[in-house]
Amino acid sequence: MADTATARRSRITPEREAELYEAVLDLLREVGYDALTMDAVAARTRSSKATLYRQWGGKAELVVKAVRHTKSGETDEVDTGSLRGDLHALVTREDDCVMERNSALMRGLAMAMHHNEDLLRTFREQLIEPEMAGIRRVIRRAVDRGEVRPDCPALEFVVHMFVGGFATRALIENQPPTRAFLTSYIDAVILPALGVRVP
Amino acid sequence: MADTATARRSRITPEREAELYEAVLDLLREVGYDALTMDAVAARTRSSKATLYRQWGGKAELVVKAVRHTKSGETDEVDTGSLRGDLHALVTREDDCVMERNSALMRGLAMAMHHNEDLLRTFREQLIEPEMAGIRRVIRRAVDRGEVRPDCPALEFVVHMFVGGFATRALIENQPPTRAFLTSYIDAVILPALGVRVP
Repeated sequence: MADTATARRSRITPEREAELYEAVLDLLREVGYDALTMDAVAARTRSSKATLYRQWGGKAELVVKAVRHTKSGETDEVDTGSLRGDLHALVTREDDCVMERNSALMRGLAMAMHHNEDLLRTFREQLIEPEMAGIRRVIRRAVDRGEVRPDCPALEFVVHMFVGGFATRALIENQPPTRAFLTSYIDAVILPALGVRVP
Repeated sequence: MADTATARRSRITPEREAELYEAVLDLLREVGYDALTMDAVAARTRSSKATLYRQWGGKAELVVKAVRHTKSGETDEVDTGSLRGDLHALVTREDDCVMERNSALMRGLAMAMHHNEDLLRTFREQLIEPEMAGIRRVIRRAVDRGEVRPDCPALEFVVHMFVGGFATRALIENQPPTRAFLTSYIDAVILPALGVRVP
């Protein structure tokens, strides 16, 4: 009976989880990854450190889950029937306002990963890999439909092309990618490289 | 007479300049940009701080010039008669060994730029801009020769495509770009996006 009550109390509702992630992102924006402590998260969210560790294991995982939570929708839900439709859908899941808001946060995390193996590994496993797996599924369906030739050499470089689109604006032009920019980039670069005609 | 002697002594020979840049790069690899001081450079190279400041103006400029010095050849010297030849020539100016050696150094500098406006501006002005101008000249000649259509939408994204090739290996695959990788990427992505057939 006591055990059931404990289990129930430690189960977190989706609303509470969302609230907690928002608080983590706010703290990240305020102090950055290195200065963020589990104590501060516990205080800000009025939860116990024990709960945070039990639920997330540690700071890196909590932060990465919070970032992942800002991404609306899952990559594998996208299936519009054409490669162009799927790629456009993938990059318009977030509105420009969210991308703008998260751009500095993501740059800060990228810096922290440089000297933080744990964060880098968690980020790769929980964010980059699932995103890339989703893109690979979208591309495989395009090959299966006959839209892209299975021996197209650009198939090896889909990730590189995407990163070029996302990162260059941030690095060189110092501005977040917008939906308009990303859809033009897909039409001008990714689809032609994959041999798909843009109407 | 005294003035001439002073002028002669403050004039730096190309050999001395190369030696100085090597020392700066060694120090950068040892301590990173933030911890690098002009005092340490002066001590290591047995020169006076006054000379360093007179010659380079400051730390950011000295560091960027040292990095630029590792790049053999100038972008605008490349003119093979075809876009494919020019792009391959551009990315094979440095051998894999140099790219490997400089990869960690460049990542460190990218991190330092994040909180160092002065370094970011100097890096953009003295390294990225001339490199991009060189690429634009190569592309313009291809358009003039009729190799690339002047209204090709990928023309706007040449820089993004290049950055995708260079940065993704470093960021996601955690390895420096090799000549073999970059030439395949040009053939599989950049040329097809520009509508140039690869033999």
